[in-house]
Amino acid sequence: MSERVFNFNPGPAALPLEVLQEIQRDLINYKGEGLSVMEMSHRSKAFEAIIKGAENLMKEIMGIPAGYKVLYLQGGATLQFAAVPLNLIGPGQHADYINTGSWAKKAIGEAKKLGKEVNVIATSEDVNYSRIPKDFKVTPDAAYLHITSNNTIAGTQFSKFPDTGKVTLVCDMSSDFNCRKIDVSKFGLIYAGAQKNMGPAGVTIVIIREDLMQKSPDNIPTMTSYKILGEKDSLYNTPPCFSIYVVKLVLEWIKKQGGLSKIEEINEKKAALLYNAIDATDFYKGTVEKDSRSIMNVTYRLPSEDLEKEFIAQGLKNGLLGLKGHRSVGGIRASIYNAVSLKAVESLVSFMKDFEKKNG
Amino acid sequence: MSERVFNFNPGPAALPLEVLQEIQRDLINYKGEGLSVMEMSHRSKAFEAIIKGAENLMKEIMGIPAGYKVLYLQGGATLQFAAVPLNLIGPGQHADYINTGSWAKKAIGEAKKLGKEVNVIATSEDVNYSRIPKDFKVTPDAAYLHITSNNTIAGTQFSKFPDTGKVTLVCDMSSDFNCRKIDVSKFGLIYAGAQKNMGPAGVTIVIIREDLMQKSPDNIPTMTSYKILGEKDSLYNTPPCFSIYVVKLVLEWIKKQGGLSKIEEINEKKAALLYNAIDATDFYKGTVEKDSRSIMNVTYRLPSEDLEKEFIAQGLKNGLLGLKGHRSVGGIRASIYNAVSLKAVESLVSFMKDFEKKNG
Repeated sequence: MSERVFNFNPGPAALPLEVLQEIQRDLINYKGEGLSVMEMSHRSKAFEAIIKGAENLMKEIMGIPAGYKVLYLQGGATLQFAAVPLNLIGPGQHADYINTGSWAKKAIGEAKKLGKEVNVIATSEDVNYSRIPKDFKVTPDAAYLHITSNNTIAGTQFSKFPDTGKVTLVCDMSSDFNCRKIDVSKFGLIYAGAQKNMGPAGVTIVIIREDLMQKSPDNIPTMTSYKILGEKDSLYNTPPCFSIYVVKLVLEWIKKQGGLSKIEEINEKKAALLYNAIDATDFYKGTVEKDSRSIMNVTYRLPSEDLEKEFIAQGLKNGLLGLKGHRSVGGIRASIYNAVSLKAVESLVSFMKDFEKKNG
Repeated sequence: MSERVFNFNPGPAALPLEVLQEIQRDLINYKGEGLSVMEMSHRSKAFEAIIKGAENLMKEIMGIPAGYKVLYLQGGATLQFAAVPLNLIGPGQHADYINTGSWAKKAIGEAKKLGKEVNVIATSEDVNYSRIPKDFKVTPDAAYLHITSNNTIAGTQFSKFPDTGKVTLVCDMSSDFNCRKIDVSKFGLIYAGAQKNMGPAGVTIVIIREDLMQKSPDNIPTMTSYKILGEKDSLYNTPPCFSIYVVKLVLEWIKKQGGLSKIEEINEKKAALLYNAIDATDFYKGTVEKDSRSIMNVTYRLPSEDLEKEFIAQGLKNGLLGLKGHRSVGGIRASIYNAVSLKAVESLVSFMKDFEKKNG
């Protein structure tokens, strides 16, 4: 293929072409420094400007209030599944979790495995995770409530975040981070692998209210200690420098698009286009209750698995990549992250119409 | 600077120009796949070829015998400082460590912090880590002996690895990994952050004898469990795909150079050139006992700190980057990793002669 495809991958996922072009241009000699970002000391002035820039831009774009740290760490959400309970569930305490799918379940499993007491206050496992639970009560003495804001596999998303009162809200935002404007002050801790909306795999963004950093016990692995990593501003050891650089470029791109309000508007438009196409016919069937639908991962079925296979194969021939549903659930999934253009979604919708005409 | 500098950074460090050029060429559309490596699913065929290729090339180049796994993980050596004792020191057991400097000390501290019993069987702390300890006795019932093969800050290196008998040898090889041919069968576990000889920061290479994977207890963080990460062949969660891709290119470059024997020969030549220049005069003074000298990090002093400052500043003006010693020890450090060319070292030696003439 000599042309770039329309990339509907669930993650790692599409990056803005402008970002890739800038990376390419500066790859061998970054802004006249005489070396690649990959070859720079993480303690050099040039890299300091990158990581500080990435921190400040994140604060600006998300409107993060004072008293929060933005950290760039390693290990993906999976390491955070461990770090959150290790740091925040003290002796004799427990934490509340909401089980909205595969990743939430992994977060719950990891906390339990590490000997922590977990209270699952709501689950939609009984309906195959086809909706976000609505009725639940946060335990007043919970160390925190953990939610997964968007469920990549099921295709559901919290449209509104729960009011937790005085209980700290912790959110795995890996698959919808910066897809919309949120009120960060409602959260104690947000974490996200970068590889959906923010950059390449290999850097994990953690936004933490500073008072929570003080809870870290001493006897946990250093790479899970918010206290140590936070006090060193992500530079306790060598960070994933190049990935952080790409995140900074993506943040600049978001700003250039008009910020998160504009990004949200486009994402809503893309999602509406696709869901309308699904709802307009009986050939396609959404798998998720309407008020729980994700604007990032759009999941649907065709009349048969054979047709689904054909749809994925024909899609690929038409330059539409990554439409296969997660291996655990099958079906179709179009991931329409920030860098997936309206044009890409229009192409998919047009392909869907054609495909139905031929096979409906 | 419009030209690329000679990069003596201690890490992240120089990469081969050919590798950077290939990354640049394929950045936006990798081998006609229609997307960047950064945008690829880690479960796609294209990425599978990259990670499998990187695994197989590592085995080929290092001559890794059957029964070992090559893993590409996250978290740097720092996460391995925790993973090693968490996985390998069972209840009632202890491990032996040799303290050869700052990084060894951190490994020891991490094991202790996690409640593990550690026996430091040798140290050169009393002589400012200016040599590799020679006389030590491995405890026969130790879970393992942990060593740091090369000490980036002090500039020392094990020229021969200790014979541990039946005790498992674990080695932090971060700063001299693949600088020479080694006998992998002598090691139970080798780990290394990639950012010296192998690629960008953000990927950690772990080479583990498969029987050791079975020792992992269940109640440790998943991202530290050799059992889980090993059984999933580095794909338990999304790996740092792009960094792994760069490692593969560096491995291909090593092969093209003539493999590790040839790399070792060039490294020995570079180190000899530099140490000879130091030894040829009283103006420069090596900081390390001769038989403990590193062929990766060459540390030396000038007659005064003012002259050292001037040396570093003048060096930079002459396109020689990264000559400042670690902030904890001062002085000069030239890191001459695999990708630092003979020509770069010749330029440094020539600059040293000039500088002495003007300031000696």
